[in-house]
Amino acid sequence: VAVTTSDATDRVDPSSSTSTSVRQSDRTTLRRHKERARYDRAEVHAVLDEGLVAHVAVVADGEPLVLPMVYARVGDRLYLHGALANHLLGTATGSVSVCFSVTLLDGLVLARSAFHHSVNFRSLVLFGPARLVDDPAEKHTAFAALVEHLVPGRSGATRMPSDAEVRSTQVVVLDIDEGSLKVRTGGPIDDEADLDLEVWAGVVPAATVFGQPDPDEGRPRELPVPDHVSARVGPNGS
Amino acid sequence: VAVTTSDATDRVDPSSSTSTSVRQSDRTTLRRHKERARYDRAEVHAVLDEGLVAHVAVVADGEPLVLPMVYARVGDRLYLHGALANHLLGTATGSVSVCFSVTLLDGLVLARSAFHHSVNFRSLVLFGPARLVDDPAEKHTAFAALVEHLVPGRSGATRMPSDAEVRSTQVVVLDIDEGSLKVRTGGPIDDEADLDLEVWAGVVPAATVFGQPDPDEGRPRELPVPDHVSARVGPNGS
Repeated sequence: VAVTTSDATDRVDPSSSTSTSVRQSDRTTLRRHKERARYDRAEVHAVLDEGLVAHVAVVADGEPLVLPMVYARVGDRLYLHGALANHLLGTATGSVSVCFSVTLLDGLVLARSAFHHSVNFRSLVLFGPARLVDDPAEKHTAFAALVEHLVPGRSGATRMPSDAEVRSTQVVVLDIDEGSLKVRTGGPIDDEADLDLEVWAGVVPAATVFGQPDPDEGRPRELPVPDHVSARVGPNGS
Repeated sequence: VAVTTSDATDRVDPSSSTSTSVRQSDRTTLRRHKERARYDRAEVHAVLDEGLVAHVAVVADGEPLVLPMVYARVGDRLYLHGALANHLLGTATGSVSVCFSVTLLDGLVLARSAFHHSVNFRSLVLFGPARLVDDPAEKHTAFAALVEHLVPGRSGATRMPSDAEVRSTQVVVLDIDEGSLKVRTGGPIDDEADLDLEVWAGVVPAATVFGQPDPDEGRPRELPVPDHVSARVGPNGS
């Protein structure tokens, strides 16, 4: 898996992306709670790798449209599979402007006052042109990455796509370039005057957890659950 | 909690919403996997009540923009709190066209072939104009619902908002009207020719799970964890 090298310079320019950060732009600069903004590429990758479903917005006939999609990261590229391709196939330029978002819920923040209730989260937003992938080799790579993203180790354990299957499926790519990550952690932030209220306050942690594998009918019932599937059981990202 | 009564008629008209279904329109009619579409209002409400974070898309300067937001349902209305208000305050009409989406991940679907890997999910999409709530009483109701949505029983256990807090906060409302729910359940659907492959196939179930409450500094450490908080621990929606 190759990481795209972009031109890293010593000059501080918030409008350029470097190999270690995503590109900060006017629309990715937080107006409120600036202290929650992150642009570090390693943190962005970690959220992308832990998340499983993205919400991708496009403008369709002048109206906003959200498409929930599975995706996979390969270096500094995101591959998307599914309905977004339909919005690309009709375009003249072969690309469409998207807003790509992955949000991980980390906890419920219970304050002494209703007003200061909140959630802990890591929320990534990326912008850019999404385009169809033409190269069959790149599509094969994307397919393997999509399967690996669901369950690490899975691509070596299944029948990988034939050339015909790859031809019949549209894959969309988005460069990890312009974006920002917003992170809230920690406990409630109550007003001073509320601190002595007789109210329990704190955080209820939240996580996506995978349960015991349920084999399909037929031969899978006879086969032992493979290690790569067993390893997926438990909290996501563990 | 009152349910809005819309004109229920005997006439079958897919463009009208009834008290028991959301309004099916051209853009909420599934083109692929039509069998996965649901319009039943009770199913829509169940997904809204189980979900915690919505992804709301708007068109900003001609470009798509996704905002992750917390929300709460009161009857056939959704109340949203946060950044969306900024996009409304500048508009002449006081309303903005949104696409509201909540997706619940229910499982990883592992097929015998990479091509048929999938996820089980319930994905709701709603369309409509979102508008600022002016009425202070309705804003108080929305605040209570937002806190109740995080942890049922919570609104009776915290200091509820003062009139000044309510005035200082923008709340946005969206009617539950035009939309659709897409649901995938069950195991992998492999090609006939792959059924005898020596490949484990099945579903790894997924759920959001809440862990042990972590009390905030100060007096909360002395207070026992209240029942409404203890009841939140475990799988979401249980």
